[in-house]
Amino acid sequence: MVAFTARKESKLVNSLKWEQDHLLLLDQTKLPETVIYLKCFNYESVITAIKTMVVRGAPAIGAAAAFAVVLAAQKIVQSPMSQRHRLLVEAAEQIAQARPTAVNLAWAVERMITKASQLESLSATEWLKSLEQEALAIAQEDITVNQQISLHGSALFTEPISLLTHCNAGALATVGIGTALGVVRQLQKENKLIQVYADETRPLLQGARLTSFELQQDGIPVTLITDNMAAWVMKQKKVQAVIVGADRIALNGDVANKIGTYGVALLAKAHDIPFYVAAPLSTFDFSMATGEEIPIEERRAEEVRSFAGSVSAPADINVYNPAFDVTPADLISGIITEVGVLKPPFSNSIAAIKK
Amino acid sequence: MVAFTARKESKLVNSLKWEQDHLLLLDQTKLPETVIYLKCFNYESVITAIKTMVVRGAPAIGAAAAFAVVLAAQKIVQSPMSQRHRLLVEAAEQIAQARPTAVNLAWAVERMITKASQLESLSATEWLKSLEQEALAIAQEDITVNQQISLHGSALFTEPISLLTHCNAGALATVGIGTALGVVRQLQKENKLIQVYADETRPLLQGARLTSFELQQDGIPVTLITDNMAAWVMKQKKVQAVIVGADRIALNGDVANKIGTYGVALLAKAHDIPFYVAAPLSTFDFSMATGEEIPIEERRAEEVRSFAGSVSAPADINVYNPAFDVTPADLISGIITEVGVLKPPFSNSIAAIKK
Repeated sequence: MVAFTARKESKLVNSLKWEQDHLLLLDQTKLPETVIYLKCFNYESVITAIKTMVVRGAPAIGAAAAFAVVLAAQKIVQSPMSQRHRLLVEAAEQIAQARPTAVNLAWAVERMITKASQLESLSATEWLKSLEQEALAIAQEDITVNQQISLHGSALFTEPISLLTHCNAGALATVGIGTALGVVRQLQKENKLIQVYADETRPLLQGARLTSFELQQDGIPVTLITDNMAAWVMKQKKVQAVIVGADRIALNGDVANKIGTYGVALLAKAHDIPFYVAAPLSTFDFSMATGEEIPIEERRAEEVRSFAGSVSAPADINVYNPAFDVTPADLISGIITEVGVLKPPFSNSIAAIKK
Repeated sequence: MVAFTARKESKLVNSLKWEQDHLLLLDQTKLPETVIYLKCFNYESVITAIKTMVVRGAPAIGAAAAFAVVLAAQKIVQSPMSQRHRLLVEAAEQIAQARPTAVNLAWAVERMITKASQLESLSATEWLKSLEQEALAIAQEDITVNQQISLHGSALFTEPISLLTHCNAGALATVGIGTALGVVRQLQKENKLIQVYADETRPLLQGARLTSFELQQDGIPVTLITDNMAAWVMKQKKVQAVIVGADRIALNGDVANKIGTYGVALLAKAHDIPFYVAAPLSTFDFSMATGEEIPIEERRAEEVRSFAGSVSAPADINVYNPAFDVTPADLISGIITEVGVLKPPFSNSIAAIKK
């Protein structure tokens, strides 16, 4: 990976950009202090970027993975035509395993391979071109989907409101204006937004580093709190709804999302505050009956033992560090998708979109 | 304040020590990396230490404040006898205002002044000696009270259990073995402790820096989690009870404690897990009918925007930083005091101890 530093004043920072022979990834581990893009010239470096969370957020990971498949194809295209597809599938399998919880990763890779399986007889140039077009379509569709989600989500609210959000489901987590933060942007546009309370989202501080940064850059009123302040913010009626993203949604409406989401959902219920999830259809895993089947990634202890590079605990202290949790469907008021807001009972509304 | 570094291997670290003409305060802002004591030769430096959280934890603040009154007396004793009491009351008022939420501070100062008002006719030497003895009694009583709380708390549990705790209500927060962590130590002694899950407790990370450190030093099994993992830990049945300390308890049983406590109490209720508060009688404020009257300290935004010098958010981001919250009595299973475990309805059980 090669790095270059971009201007900091750019208003809506792009999480990724495709540049024909390489993928530009905004290094989100360096935000908000440094806005720097990494140049990935091969699929292995995209895998590393996904694992180390240079790129994160389920839809952004999906798009990055699609371009990783194109980068793999650019290398594989040198091989005999008879081996192309097998080699691409092998690379794709590695890409799909970069992280376990967000299903958009597997979804994007599978879509690329499904496309590739229709292209086996094409010339090298056309094979590459078609794969690149499919990846670009995935990215472009995410932009459109973000806008549709934003409109459906905004329509839920008639009066100006303040919202609480957790982690980052914004432009930085997607290719477009974001899912949960896409709704926030649309509310702002319609003068229906008072304030966003952003949970800082330990251990990796996506709320403090990314959501605060992204909303501030966009001129949207945001107040940063530590995760453990959410209950008190609700008690004091400072927010009227919660909106978050998702990494995987099961058939019954159980939602895997960033660790802490489940707690926020319980707190919202205790305060009679509606709890919304905003996510594209690519986040639904129709193969899973309930959230209990969703694999939950555990990450290394160092993330919890330190804080933004500073030691915050004894060096060898035992740590539990699940990166996600599962919010049961019965805590969710609605799931905002590009085809509309799914309502409980989710078994029915999700079955309907499954077709 | 003058500083010296103590050996790190000392097992049970003392939060404070009285040395005739100065107060030694363990600088808890430097833990766990550095074990260093500050020497306070005057009451003003103790006030600074309380404000900056060199010493923190309601009972430890109370004891430190009592010794601060003695330090004030050591200076005031040079003044004419007719002015002694007035000058001492003036200094005491400054000490009592160092922080607003923990009532033990005001309680200890008031006790010192009540004592002083009985001593007005004494010689300088005897006046000083009696005040010093009262401060030493406050400290010594806290040690005894911690032991009584520990025994009453431990008796609540018959089977070995795992506990969740928030912030630090341990040796570092008291003069003795701690309140909530005193119970933990007694459970360990009786082979009734499996594991302690410690919330890291942002923004100042008392769970990560202090509770983890203190329990690890004492050979007690502890697992550190970020605050937003508590709900998921409960969901997975990793803990069977929650135990925390308190900064002020109202007549109806509402409890002010470190920010995040209220959220943990709601989560415990949602998982049918008992939620206990361990606190000495000096934490009760019999002048307050409910927790709504308790003043909640708000601290500076920098605590949320960074940790130990590491930036975690945009430099000028808006922040909400309440240092405490109030847990309503109806979420509390019992309040463990030196005279036994108070049970709901707390209006009755607290009225009984008020006498």
